[in-house]
Amino acid sequence: MIILDGKKIKDKVLDELRYEVAKLPLKPNLVVIQVGDNEASNIYINQKQKMALYIGYGFKHLKFNADINETDLLLEINKLNNDMEVHGILVQMPLPSHIDPSIIQNAIDYKKDVDGLTDINAGKLLHGKDALFPCTPLGVMRLLDEYNISVSGKNAVIVGRSDLVGKPMAVMLSKAGATVSICHSKTKNLEKYTLLADILVVAVGKIGLITSDMVHDGAVVIDVGINKCDDKICGDVCFDEVKNKASYISPVPFGVGQMTVAMLGVNVLKAFNMQRNM
Amino acid sequence: MIILDGKKIKDKVLDELRYEVAKLPLKPNLVVIQVGDNEASNIYINQKQKMALYIGYGFKHLKFNADINETDLLLEINKLNNDMEVHGILVQMPLPSHIDPSIIQNAIDYKKDVDGLTDINAGKLLHGKDALFPCTPLGVMRLLDEYNISVSGKNAVIVGRSDLVGKPMAVMLSKAGATVSICHSKTKNLEKYTLLADILVVAVGKIGLITSDMVHDGAVVIDVGINKCDDKICGDVCFDEVKNKASYISPVPFGVGQMTVAMLGVNVLKAFNMQRNM
Repeated sequence: MIILDGKKIKDKVLDELRYEVAKLPLKPNLVVIQVGDNEASNIYINQKQKMALYIGYGFKHLKFNADINETDLLLEINKLNNDMEVHGILVQMPLPSHIDPSIIQNAIDYKKDVDGLTDINAGKLLHGKDALFPCTPLGVMRLLDEYNISVSGKNAVIVGRSDLVGKPMAVMLSKAGATVSICHSKTKNLEKYTLLADILVVAVGKIGLITSDMVHDGAVVIDVGINKCDDKICGDVCFDEVKNKASYISPVPFGVGQMTVAMLGVNVLKAFNMQRNM
Repeated sequence: MIILDGKKIKDKVLDELRYEVAKLPLKPNLVVIQVGDNEASNIYINQKQKMALYIGYGFKHLKFNADINETDLLLEINKLNNDMEVHGILVQMPLPSHIDPSIIQNAIDYKKDVDGLTDINAGKLLHGKDALFPCTPLGVMRLLDEYNISVSGKNAVIVGRSDLVGKPMAVMLSKAGATVSICHSKTKNLEKYTLLADILVVAVGKIGLITSDMVHDGAVVIDVGINKCDDKICGDVCFDEVKNKASYISPVPFGVGQMTVAMLGVNVLKAFNMQRNM
């Protein structure tokens, strides 16, 4: 059994990006918008800043009061859309309840949408085109690629159908040639599907969801869950028992979560290049 | 075994639309663009015209020479986008090889995109929003609904992953609560999946692909294939043998194909209402 070392691959990806960015005549700039002062958001934004500065990106953190209204926030996004010096824009979720996250997300110029969450980028994904896509499923694809795990012709099973992970993951794995099954809360006999999986991606947010009897020998198990258990972080997969069956398994922490930040780094450079080539 | 009678349901849908449209103060208008003089296209456009006139829509067929260039075609589409009297725009495929179908498709205002093929409408579909979606998978959903076939919690298997059918079908069935598996040319042991299916949708274009040993007793079988066999039209499913196992089965012809035209009728009225409510 091999542990899919998200930390190691993240470091590799960041070093590659740092090398590429050093050669650029201009610095790609990332702007993160935050509304209010959510504690978890502060931590996530710090991680993104650290990543950006390591690679050599410019980084700007725009923090607005929780009572900013939707119209004013849209105006701020519009300013950033029109600012040629800004290459990537990201709105840290969650937003206060009086603001519609989908309206805000879709106000971002799709060429600067480094979270890959605009409708138009989702449509390009579904249509098999190249564009900016969500970081977590991109991170899973990169992790598989770095460990030379072939996808074409494999049976892939995804548990969870979120816009952020499950749905784009299904599209990416299908495009890469896997037969993809998408399971969720309404799936009956979940184990009937998970036992089919050569590649199992779990993105639900439920501690202990996947036990060893639900996984076939030699499966590749990717755990996207991030749950608090006591004072630690754990995934959706019972790591200690499933690791004995898996050929490859991603741990939590230091698995997919690391890759998500790395892929944001990849998307910023991609957005920069897309804007330069227009 | 019950035959899913696409012809009957189409007639019902068209009558409902005709009734609704008669009450409108304005007539919804559909424009079909054709480039060149493909024989099959002529037949399809005639079917669409017949449908439109029956419902009470205005219908305009714009036919351009096969040598029109992309820029001029884009200008024509732009005129239609800006014409308040035009509510639905459809470009009949195929286009000549010097024209990129994706560029043309995406030039259509998404609110007038009655074929549901723009990237942005595909993204809205993936994100679970309401918009204009491709007619064939819409027709399958309507057929299931009309026969009171519940989808939530069912195992749905789709064979084929096209932009027109397989991919949007997967998204729609998943949203409706099915566990969805998407199979395609790279799937090994196709029958392992098809045997799982409570609802099997086949959209490949390969005569005789699905035989009775690949279907479990009581499955709902939807055949989207349209193939020429001798001087007849047949689907991807061996109808005569599979019908003995299925609880419901759609025939070819007079199955899903009928629904596709009907759903174009539905989309024109939806587009009209979307534009009026802005």
